[in-house]
Amino acid sequence: MRLTAMSDYSLRVLMYLGSSDDRLCTIAEIARAYGISENHLMKVVNRLGQSGLVETVRGRNGGLRLGQDPQAIRLGEVLRATEEDFDLVECFGPDDTCRITRVCRLKHALRRALKAYLAELDGWTLADIISNRQSLRSELNQTYL
Amino acid sequence: MRLTAMSDYSLRVLMYLGSSDDRLCTIAEIARAYGISENHLMKVVNRLGQSGLVETVRGRNGGLRLGQDPQAIRLGEVLRATEEDFDLVECFGPDDTCRITRVCRLKHALRRALKAYLAELDGWTLADIISNRQSLRSELNQTYL
Repeated sequence: MRLTAMSDYSLRVLMYLGSSDDRLCTIAEIARAYGISENHLMKVVNRLGQSGLVETVRGRNGGLRLGQDPQAIRLGEVLRATEEDFDLVECFGPDDTCRITRVCRLKHALRRALKAYLAELDGWTLADIISNRQSLRSELNQTYL
Repeated sequence: MRLTAMSDYSLRVLMYLGSSDDRLCTIAEIARAYGISENHLMKVVNRLGQSGLVETVRGRNGGLRLGQDPQAIRLGEVLRATEEDFDLVECFGPDDTCRITRVCRLKHALRRALKAYLAELDGWTLADIISNRQSLRSELNQTYL
């Protein structure tokens, strides 16, 4: 059930950028704030850029900012962009060897559960989880703000 | 998001036993029917026995059968008995190092999503997913029935 590190770190990056308003942030400062590796974050930011959730401004004074309004970023959408797949069991993916797949009704129950999970997350936006941005900023020691 | 092998195999065992009515089944035949290892299944059956979902009858003519009526076995309950944990992110478990845990609102969204997922599965019973037991039996080549 665990989210991938890609999803976990993506959500942290989005929360960081969202609580920094429109200021351009760097991967280095986000890595430092969360105490996680810059290398990991580069891959994360790359994926977020491809999906339009983050915008990268190049150049000497460049950096990162949100690619969309926090109220438009649904958490379900973030996971769809960052999870490798939602293969709860092998028959959801291409390498299925289960002998009862053809008649199995369990997969319907699991698909419904997955749908309920993502529907709940689609009811939350980034804005909802950074509504306490002052506290978030202080926890991340963004003292330069 | 993937279920553990323990959960996956547990559900398969329960479906097998449920579609075998009250006949005592053996680990060997279930392993053969699904083409999975007996060793794996022994651990699975052990866990299912501890949680009361499966009943083991010892002796020469012994074997396994469901410990509860199929209509009483909710799928959410099976996962609660078989998943190691439901730690979607590190702050759900004991080894949390995330720097914003104290003020983070993401965890509330994730807990709600997990709750929706399990609630959906609690709406399904084993009886629901073995209502086509003739097809299941035929798929599992239970020709001796």
